[in-house]
Amino acid sequence: MAEQKPLILVTNDDGITSHGIRTLVELMQQLGTVVVVAPNSPQSGMGHAITIANPLRLYPTDLFTDVIAYECSGTPADCVKLAKHHVLKDRAPDLVVSGVNHGGNTSISVLYSGTMSAAIEAAIEGIPAIGFSLGDFTRQPDFSHTHEHILSITRNVLERGMTKGTALNVNFPPRGSEPLKGIRICRQANAKWQEVFDERRDPHGRRYFWLAGEFVNYDTHAEDTDEYALANNYTSVVPCQYDLTAYAMVDELKNWNL
Amino acid sequence: MAEQKPLILVTNDDGITSHGIRTLVELMQQLGTVVVVAPNSPQSGMGHAITIANPLRLYPTDLFTDVIAYECSGTPADCVKLAKHHVLKDRAPDLVVSGVNHGGNTSISVLYSGTMSAAIEAAIEGIPAIGFSLGDFTRQPDFSHTHEHILSITRNVLERGMTKGTALNVNFPPRGSEPLKGIRICRQANAKWQEVFDERRDPHGRRYFWLAGEFVNYDTHAEDTDEYALANNYTSVVPCQYDLTAYAMVDELKNWNL
Repeated sequence: MAEQKPLILVTNDDGITSHGIRTLVELMQQLGTVVVVAPNSPQSGMGHAITIANPLRLYPTDLFTDVIAYECSGTPADCVKLAKHHVLKDRAPDLVVSGVNHGGNTSISVLYSGTMSAAIEAAIEGIPAIGFSLGDFTRQPDFSHTHEHILSITRNVLERGMTKGTALNVNFPPRGSEPLKGIRICRQANAKWQEVFDERRDPHGRRYFWLAGEFVNYDTHAEDTDEYALANNYTSVVPCQYDLTAYAMVDELKNWNL
Repeated sequence: MAEQKPLILVTNDDGITSHGIRTLVELMQQLGTVVVVAPNSPQSGMGHAITIANPLRLYPTDLFTDVIAYECSGTPADCVKLAKHHVLKDRAPDLVVSGVNHGGNTSISVLYSGTMSAAIEAAIEGIPAIGFSLGDFTRQPDFSHTHEHILSITRNVLERGMTKGTALNVNFPPRGSEPLKGIRICRQANAKWQEVFDERRDPHGRRYFWLAGEFVNYDTHAEDTDEYALANNYTSVVPCQYDLTAYAMVDELKNWNL
């Protein structure tokens, strides 16, 4: 009996029509049987949102060649849930990949990222998962320099599996004049968005705010962060976990005698 | 010069009209000067979503007595950002409290919880923060058994501060016939929602899905989890961090020779 090809679920947070997911689907077709369940609209910044108070829609689409694909009205996390429990109910996927995101998901952005929440949702279900993001927010970025690393990282995860409770957060620098220097295993940089709210008036004279701001890296001297890797033209790989317990603080709190 | 009272920002994810936030505002008025910035509609399950692609609205409201309060069109994380950068721009709050949520946020629910994302957003800003949740999903639950623990935990955080990069996730069991047994410092239980999608047809014959499911605890024999505490009529306190790096896996990945 021929060995069964791995079943790979592809999703994203930029929506099913984005260039990033098309790139990822084409690459995954080299490695296994691909099924797509992705949002029907952009879901950037949705974090780990799920749809509780509204019904979800799920429609088949022929956007991809030789691929079973569905567009879903929900968030990236919803897509993974619906894929596992409805679309793929007869066979759990061997891998979930999310992306390639248009825009970086390094450091603190992992919390806000729909791309990574899809990967973490898969990890919760015990499925190896990887989120891929490119530090280029344009609508039609060049993904060609990421292909080789996407394939090698994915092959490794398919072969070796992942530690229970974890998923990989992979980020690529935008395509530059030099080829990527390699892959660095990193930790999440200690950084944040320094928000600025742009205050405006609508045509009816009512006030509104746009979230804006700039990225501040507090870890500028560290060389083991994802920010350092990207700034130096490496691909960053950060293993992420969904157990948020701050174990170091558990003992301290016990001394508070609450 | 008289000592300045602590400035406490109150938010939630059930929306500014919920009973839980009213309870929390009244309790915080015993401890400091209270400012409220909370969503103008329910935001349960929003996780760490932020509003990037749409403008935000912020309107003053007189819902609370002797409290400066604003309702915001955004998510809980948006509320904290707007509060810090717009409403409270002249003085950073000494504490951010979120809740009291109508429904538990133990174990894996911390990822989906808008209540906790507000607290974590505050932690990112370097502000001590606590999320409070009651394991009772009804619209008008009895919060009276939680008052004493809310006050004592909050007093402690105001006095001692929090370890950088962390926020507290506090959960209460629903009011029963016995008083609460006490407070337990816990880790996040290893548990998940076993989803079921309820498939229906709308009046136009089109298919839709409701997310449903049941909670499965894989940690039933452990006594150090938040689930154990709640099941045994204790208040659970879990310190949470937003550094998601799975440090144990970093070294393993280096051996993959990617």
